[in-house]
Amino acid sequence: MLSKILVGIDGSQYADKAFEYAIFLASRCKSNLLIVNVLEEYGNVGYSISKELERQGKQLLETYRQRAEKSGLSSVSTIELRGISAAAHILQLADTKGVDTIVIGSRGPHEVNEFLLGGTSYKIVHNAKCTVVIAK
Amino acid sequence: MLSKILVGIDGSQYADKAFEYAIFLASRCKSNLLIVNVLEEYGNVGYSISKELERQGKQLLETYRQRAEKSGLSSVSTIELRGISAAAHILQLADTKGVDTIVIGSRGPHEVNEFLLGGTSYKIVHNAKCTVVIAK
Repeated sequence: MLSKILVGIDGSQYADKAFEYAIFLASRCKSNLLIVNVLEEYGNVGYSISKELERQGKQLLETYRQRAEKSGLSSVSTIELRGISAAAHILQLADTKGVDTIVIGSRGPHEVNEFLLGGTSYKIVHNAKCTVVIAK
Repeated sequence: MLSKILVGIDGSQYADKAFEYAIFLASRCKSNLLIVNVLEEYGNVGYSISKELERQGKQLLETYRQRAEKSGLSSVSTIELRGISAAAHILQLADTKGVDTIVIGSRGPHEVNEFLLGGTSYKIVHNAKCTVVIAK
């Protein structure tokens, strides 16, 4: 039921809570953990900025991978995606990889607008074929 | 992180999936499980119908309690609530009881409208202070 968990990170405190929750679940349920960072592209930012964002994204994933491994998880993988919609990328990846639970953060009060206006969390909760955890 | 799990049931297949997920989590994480059924009251249905609904609700809870105990869970409790908003009751109970994770079902395609129009799942995801699992 929880053999493969996907957690989305973005460097925020909200995603960090989701990560902590995902680690807890994965360690209790002996799950594989897939850590995903999506670099959302809102336009052409130029080659050097694009490269810098990519470097930061990779660094972020590496930091999280190390945290997961230090928590004793034996099966941890990381993926960096790029595109215009984090939600669509995460959902597609979850399908492709056979993920059974997606763990995402909640932006608290801000979520009100984001949710209603079709933000990332909303789209994931709404469209995921698998179970979704909104960690708080 | 998962010491007390609340699961909402209503006799539907969607809630049943949530229940299975909650049992799985509770057994892996050694959590207390609180099974909640809310009898939503949309108006005065009369004494005999009201009593019959109450009887059915109690029976449903007892069936689920037995399933949870057969799964090996040692700490299972059940609560029946009555009122006009299942979401508000579940959220209030979660606060009062110090629940750290609420598990609810998702009605699949129907959820689209229910979600947008402010259905139970939406209200819970949106307003809960604790983590919410939308089991599918």
